[in-house]
Amino acid sequence: MNSGIRIGRRAVLAFAAVLLSACAQLAPVADPLPSWNEGSAKEAIVQFVRKTTDPSSPQFVPLAQRVATFDQDGTLWVEQPIYAQVAFALDRVKDVVKVQPALANEAPFSAVVTGDREAMARFTEEDLLKIVGASQSGLTIEAFHEVVRNWAATSKHPKYQRPYTELVYAPMLEAMKYLRSNGYRTYIVTGGGQEFVRAFAEAVYGVPPEQVMGTMLKVDYAVRDGRPTLTNAPALFFIDDKAGKPVGINMMTGRRPQAAFGNSDGDQQMLEWTTGGAGARLGMLVLHDDAQREYAYGPATGLPASKVGSFTQPLYDEAKTKGWTVISIRNDWKRVFAFE
Amino acid sequence: MNSGIRIGRRAVLAFAAVLLSACAQLAPVADPLPSWNEGSAKEAIVQFVRKTTDPSSPQFVPLAQRVATFDQDGTLWVEQPIYAQVAFALDRVKDVVKVQPALANEAPFSAVVTGDREAMARFTEEDLLKIVGASQSGLTIEAFHEVVRNWAATSKHPKYQRPYTELVYAPMLEAMKYLRSNGYRTYIVTGGGQEFVRAFAEAVYGVPPEQVMGTMLKVDYAVRDGRPTLTNAPALFFIDDKAGKPVGINMMTGRRPQAAFGNSDGDQQMLEWTTGGAGARLGMLVLHDDAQREYAYGPATGLPASKVGSFTQPLYDEAKTKGWTVISIRNDWKRVFAFE
Repeated sequence: MNSGIRIGRRAVLAFAAVLLSACAQLAPVADPLPSWNEGSAKEAIVQFVRKTTDPSSPQFVPLAQRVATFDQDGTLWVEQPIYAQVAFALDRVKDVVKVQPALANEAPFSAVVTGDREAMARFTEEDLLKIVGASQSGLTIEAFHEVVRNWAATSKHPKYQRPYTELVYAPMLEAMKYLRSNGYRTYIVTGGGQEFVRAFAEAVYGVPPEQVMGTMLKVDYAVRDGRPTLTNAPALFFIDDKAGKPVGINMMTGRRPQAAFGNSDGDQQMLEWTTGGAGARLGMLVLHDDAQREYAYGPATGLPASKVGSFTQPLYDEAKTKGWTVISIRNDWKRVFAFE
Repeated sequence: MNSGIRIGRRAVLAFAAVLLSACAQLAPVADPLPSWNEGSAKEAIVQFVRKTTDPSSPQFVPLAQRVATFDQDGTLWVEQPIYAQVAFALDRVKDVVKVQPALANEAPFSAVVTGDREAMARFTEEDLLKIVGASQSGLTIEAFHEVVRNWAATSKHPKYQRPYTELVYAPMLEAMKYLRSNGYRTYIVTGGGQEFVRAFAEAVYGVPPEQVMGTMLKVDYAVRDGRPTLTNAPALFFIDDKAGKPVGINMMTGRRPQAAFGNSDGDQQMLEWTTGGAGARLGMLVLHDDAQREYAYGPATGLPASKVGSFTQPLYDEAKTKGWTVISIRNDWKRVFAFE
């Protein structure tokens, strides 16, 4: 620039914009969803993104409103044969009993301590909640995150013999990234524990803590030894499942999502709320129909019934009525896991 | 570019970066806080931003962690002689009584209906909560926002004879903008109603709904006439005041803020939690000591005691001990309101 011509700020900005735009055109157009087979599920995602991000589209969605919500268990990672957080909580029982030995003789903890598989198989939701609650209460939020991360680094899933955090679905990670690269903020909306998932959500999903909502324990604030602390209390504060999902989404975002992904009856209301809004909306449900690569359970479309992540026929029928896309793992996913 | 030289993507990007950086240097350096007098309060904000955003600073804070939280009543806008939301709720009582006539004969509503100022002056917190609750329960979230916006457009503050939404502090709006232009996400953390504030937060403060947390009513999800709806129920779900502030901030963000702004005993725990973290932290408290331009109340430093937004001497002393900056409206603010 030794010509001596003085250039104004506006001209420089305009020139930079032209150069940056030229860059974008030089970049090769790669398939953003390589783990998906061609078909209606992949097409639904791509068309939704095009319709809502093309400024000339009548269904264009402003950047601020681009919110997509994802259930976790069974939607982003494996939920069989038991939820990862239940596996974590069962592993934690021995540590909890060390601190509170009296629990060893008390149901439901006694069954875990003695390894009574029959009693464990009969555990009610309430029993599991007690175990999950005990696994995290009394710890500060930071200490609990540390415990979860240590567990995640050393735990092994019984079928895959790999850490649970490797059992995330590669096609769903691609969908999240694709949405994010198109200006969508991706939220996790889980019936599992909010702080449990926050412990690894950024590393595993690229989702920051403010975009993780889940079931919450009561949290106590106190100054201990001069240090302000937040500690999990042994009481439920909010259940982020079924009708709790739209309520939790409103609480955390004040917005109705444009897209929602789930896999079970617990996600029904989130999809209703999402797709009940005006304009282009996307509702998707993962159907686990691949016993070989993953698991096969429903009971929708005649798959075996499951206590964990049940996807019933009425939900399947509602999906057809409302135009939600059912993702068949067997047919729609070229690969299920990154390690394949 | 007719020289025929082919330029790669990296070179173009590097060149664009150089040009953009040149632009930044061409831009005039304007005072980001023109409504602040020179002094320690203004200096504290500017130094905090420099220390935490200069990549070469040992106290540099990565973009993702740049969170600043602001109380609303008395920190961002006028809270005297009564909280704006209480004024709103009192105005709403006549509409509520139209729908539920029986309430007209029931305390505390009867006092409002008959204009019994003596009884109203004796209202307890519980009475006010009943009135606030009744003013929004039974409405869908969208309908409630609409009611609030209509009220905000027509209401008049008794002293200023202007809408409450014009009674925001110009210096605080500048501080919010300055922080945002330096990568901070600005959250409102209010003891007032989350949905009440969301109704106008974007227009008034530039704060989107996902960055507004406040006291929450229970919300019910239901499908009515085929339409999914979220409706305020007449029950408190979460009180976002005192110890509730750090708890609410963790719930909504999963992060400890780098900076927190408040003005009363209700903000004490938020400032403790914020400034209790490592690295550069900013805690600021607005002291209302300007009876002429605004109001003068404490009782800290001998100002008249107030039922609304009480700033007690112990909080003032803690501010000195912990290095929080007390903002004197009289001395630190060149102008209080944009309309001055």
